[in-house]
Amino acid sequence: MKVPGPSYSITLRVEVINKPGMFGKVATVIGNAGGDIGAVDIVSVGRGVIVRDINVNARDETHEKKIVESVKKIDGVKLLHVSDMTFLMHHGGKIEIHNKIPVKNRNDLSMVYTPGVARVCTAIHHDKEKAYRFTIKRNSVAIITDGSAVLGLGDIGPEAAMPVMEGKAMLFKEFADIDAFPIALSTRDAEEIIKVAKYISPAFGGINLEDISAPRCFEIEERLKIELDIPVFHDDQHGTAVVILAALINAVKVIGKRLEDLKAVISGAGAAGTATCKMLLKIGIKDIIVCDKAGAIYKGRKEHMNSVKEWISENTNPGMIKGSLSDAMAGADIFIGVSAPNLITVADIKRMSHDPIVFALANPEPEIAPEDAIPHARIFATGRSDYPNQINNMLCFPGLFRGLLNSRAKEVNDEIKLAASMAIALMVDEKDLSEDYIVPSIFDRRVVAEVAAKVSEAAHKTGIARRE
Amino acid sequence: MKVPGPSYSITLRVEVINKPGMFGKVATVIGNAGGDIGAVDIVSVGRGVIVRDINVNARDETHEKKIVESVKKIDGVKLLHVSDMTFLMHHGGKIEIHNKIPVKNRNDLSMVYTPGVARVCTAIHHDKEKAYRFTIKRNSVAIITDGSAVLGLGDIGPEAAMPVMEGKAMLFKEFADIDAFPIALSTRDAEEIIKVAKYISPAFGGINLEDISAPRCFEIEERLKIELDIPVFHDDQHGTAVVILAALINAVKVIGKRLEDLKAVISGAGAAGTATCKMLLKIGIKDIIVCDKAGAIYKGRKEHMNSVKEWISENTNPGMIKGSLSDAMAGADIFIGVSAPNLITVADIKRMSHDPIVFALANPEPEIAPEDAIPHARIFATGRSDYPNQINNMLCFPGLFRGLLNSRAKEVNDEIKLAASMAIALMVDEKDLSEDYIVPSIFDRRVVAEVAAKVSEAAHKTGIARRE
Repeated sequence: MKVPGPSYSITLRVEVINKPGMFGKVATVIGNAGGDIGAVDIVSVGRGVIVRDINVNARDETHEKKIVESVKKIDGVKLLHVSDMTFLMHHGGKIEIHNKIPVKNRNDLSMVYTPGVARVCTAIHHDKEKAYRFTIKRNSVAIITDGSAVLGLGDIGPEAAMPVMEGKAMLFKEFADIDAFPIALSTRDAEEIIKVAKYISPAFGGINLEDISAPRCFEIEERLKIELDIPVFHDDQHGTAVVILAALINAVKVIGKRLEDLKAVISGAGAAGTATCKMLLKIGIKDIIVCDKAGAIYKGRKEHMNSVKEWISENTNPGMIKGSLSDAMAGADIFIGVSAPNLITVADIKRMSHDPIVFALANPEPEIAPEDAIPHARIFATGRSDYPNQINNMLCFPGLFRGLLNSRAKEVNDEIKLAASMAIALMVDEKDLSEDYIVPSIFDRRVVAEVAAKVSEAAHKTGIARRE
Repeated sequence: MKVPGPSYSITLRVEVINKPGMFGKVATVIGNAGGDIGAVDIVSVGRGVIVRDINVNARDETHEKKIVESVKKIDGVKLLHVSDMTFLMHHGGKIEIHNKIPVKNRNDLSMVYTPGVARVCTAIHHDKEKAYRFTIKRNSVAIITDGSAVLGLGDIGPEAAMPVMEGKAMLFKEFADIDAFPIALSTRDAEEIIKVAKYISPAFGGINLEDISAPRCFEIEERLKIELDIPVFHDDQHGTAVVILAALINAVKVIGKRLEDLKAVISGAGAAGTATCKMLLKIGIKDIIVCDKAGAIYKGRKEHMNSVKEWISENTNPGMIKGSLSDAMAGADIFIGVSAPNLITVADIKRMSHDPIVFALANPEPEIAPEDAIPHARIFATGRSDYPNQINNMLCFPGLFRGLLNSRAKEVNDEIKLAASMAIALMVDEKDLSEDYIVPSIFDRRVVAEVAAKVSEAAHKTGIARRE
C-alpha cells in the first residue's frame, strides 16, 4: 500500500469549538483515517471557536476524500474549506518573467528601450555572435514539446503538458540558473516541429526536446542537430542514457565485473531504450538485446519494426536471440527497464547471471515491484525517490546545459554525453560506493557544477566550443 | 544640436593624482568637451592616487570618443577603462525566468514536478480551460517578430531585434505585471509566421505582433484573429492608432472642433497609418486622405498599390484628391505623420485649416522639426519624450493586454480599442487640458489600471470575455 506523501497533501480549514480536548479529537480522527498530519496553523479565534488550518498528507485522491468525510462527521467541528497543496502550487503557473534591471523613469527607458536600444541592435546586426553578449541567448533554453509522451501520462496534448514543462523550467532555474521557457506545440507533424524549432532559435542558446513520442523524436532531433548551430538535446533519450551509464559505471565497480564483458538486456525500444542502447555500444558493450512489446529485436524480424528498430536489429543481439523478454534475460548481467510496469518476475531475475544488476526505471510503477526484486538482485535501482539508487534525469540536464551554455557549444556530441556520465559517476566517492549508493542525490548541488565543468571541457576538447 | 542624454552615457574609470584641484581639472575638461557629468564614485584610494568612476552623458558616439580623448590628454590622469552604460545594461540580456515557488527538497519536487504534477496535467487534459488556472497561460504574452521593421532601424533580422523585444517584455512586466516572452523568428514567410504563432499558442494567453513589415503584418494579424481563440494584437498598427485617437479626442476638446467634421491627412500607408485610418473612419471622420511615397491614395490609382492600399482607396479620399502630400494638406484640420523624417514644411502647415493639429510621429526624427512646426501649429505632438505631447504606444499596450488577460478576451475588437482610446484620453483632467497636455505621461501608473478596466469592461459587454 502506498504511504501518505506530499503529492496528495490537503489543507483542511476547520472551525472547532474552543475547549480542551477538541483538537486531539480532530487529530485522532484524521490519524485513524490514515492521514499524516503536518503543519497546523491558527487562523483566527472567535467567540468560543477557533479556526485552524490542518495540513494532511494522504495516499491518493480517494484517501483525501475519505479523510475529509471523517472530519465532517465530528461533533463540534465545522469544515470550512479544503484546499489541495499541489493544485495551489500550480495556481496561475509556476514561473514568471523577471526584469534584471528596473524601468522606473525616462533615463532607464532610454537605455533599455528606445532610443538607446538601437545602438545595441545595430551592434548585433553587424556581428550576429554579439547576440550572446547582449541578449538572453547567452542563458536561454527552449523546452519544446508536443505533449505526446508526457511522463507516465502519455499523449495528453500541449496544454496539459504545460505543468510538466513549467516544472522542468523551474528545475533549470533552481539547479543551473538557466532561463528555460516552455514551447508547447499544437502540432504533431515532425516536419512542422522541426521548422518551429529552427524559426524560434535566434532567441535561444539551446533546445531541450521533451516528451515527444518515438519514433518522431529521433527524426526531429537528428534533423535539428544538422540544421541548427545551437545544441539540441532530447532529454528523454540522452538524459536518461547518460544517468543510466553513470549508474552502471558505479554498479560494476561494486560487483567487480568489467563493463565490456556485460551481457545487457534493455526493455523498451522508445526514446530512452534506443539512446541507452547506443551509449552502451559506444563504451564497448557488445552483447546487448533490446526488447519491445513483441519480444527480442533481432536482424530480420518483420513485425512491429520502424527505422530505429531496424538500426537496433543490425547493431545488437549478436546471438540472434528470438523470443520473449523473459527468454532474453537468461544469463544477462544487467537488466535495464525503460518500458512499462510489471513486465518481469523474480524468476526472470533468478535466471540472470550471478550478481544481477536490475534497473527497473518505468515511472511511477517499475518493471518489477522493488519489494519483490530487492532480495534477488545484487544491485537494484528505480526512478523513484522512495528507494535507494534513484536514476533521474535531474542528475544530468541542469549541469549538461550549464556546460553547453558556458562553452557556447554548437552541439551535443558523444564525448560530451560520456563526460557527463563520468562526472555523475565520480560524484560518489569510491569509498562510499555500495549496492545501495551508486548515484549521487539529485539535491547534491555539486553534481551540477561538476557535470557543467566536464561538459564544457569536452566541448573545448572536441572543438565545438565557441567561447574563449 | 542634440543635447547629451542617457542613451549615450559612459563611465570613465580614471586614476588621478590625489591632490586638491585635480578632480576640478578633470571635470572642467569633460565640461569643456560638452559632456554632462552625473554620478561620481570613489573606487579606491592608493598611494598618492585616487581611482574614480565618472559617469558622463554625451550626445552621440562621436561625442563620446571626443570626451574620452580629451580626458586622456590631462596630465596626472590615467584613463583605466571606459564603459558604456547602455551596452552594460543589455549585457547577458535584460529579462530572466523566476520561479514563483522554491524547489529545495523532495516535498517541493513531488508537488511542482513528478509525481504530483500528473494530477494537474490530468485536470487540464479533461478540461482545457483549466490551462488558465494552472499554467502561465493566465498571464503570458508572446511577443512575435521577424525583425523586419524594427523601430527606426528597419530590417535587421531576428537576432538584432531581440534587445527591442526584451525591452518590450520588460515594459509588459514593469507596467502591467504581464509575463511576456520574445519569440524572434528566422522566417519572413507570412504563412510560416502564422503557423508558428498557432503552434506555440497553447502556452500563451495573448499574442503581441511586433515590428513585422507591411503589408505582411496585415495578413498575419487578420488570419491569426480568425484562426486563434486568444487575442492577437499588432502593436505597431493598433497600439499607435489607439493612442493617436486618444490624443485627437483631447486635441479637438482644446480647439473646439468636432471629431466628425475634421479633415484629416495621414502620411504613411504602413502598419500605423492604415490602422489609424480605419480607426478614424470608425469614429465617424469622413474626410481622410492617406498619402504614401507616391502621394495621395485615391480610387483608381495604379502605381505603388497593394491590397491594403486598394482598401484605403475605396474607403477614403471622397474628394478624389490627387497629387503630393503637400497638395493633400491644403485645408486639413489634422496632419498625422507615421512615415519618415522631414516630409512636410512650415508652408504646408500654413496651408492647413485654422488651428491646425500636427502629429509628427516618425521616430526619432519627426516629419517636421518641432522647432519649425511649433510656432505654426495650434497643437503639436511627437513620439519623443523631449517635447510636450508624447504619443507613445506605452500608453496603450500594457493596460490593453492587462484587460484582455483579466477578462480572458478571445480577441481584440473595435469596441475594445475605442475603450482604450477613451480611457487614455480621460486620464487628462478636463481642467488640465491644454495645447501642451493632451495625453497623460507614460509613467502615470493610473493609465494602465484605467485602460485595463475599460478594456475588460468592453470585452464583457461585447460578449468575448471568458472569465466570470
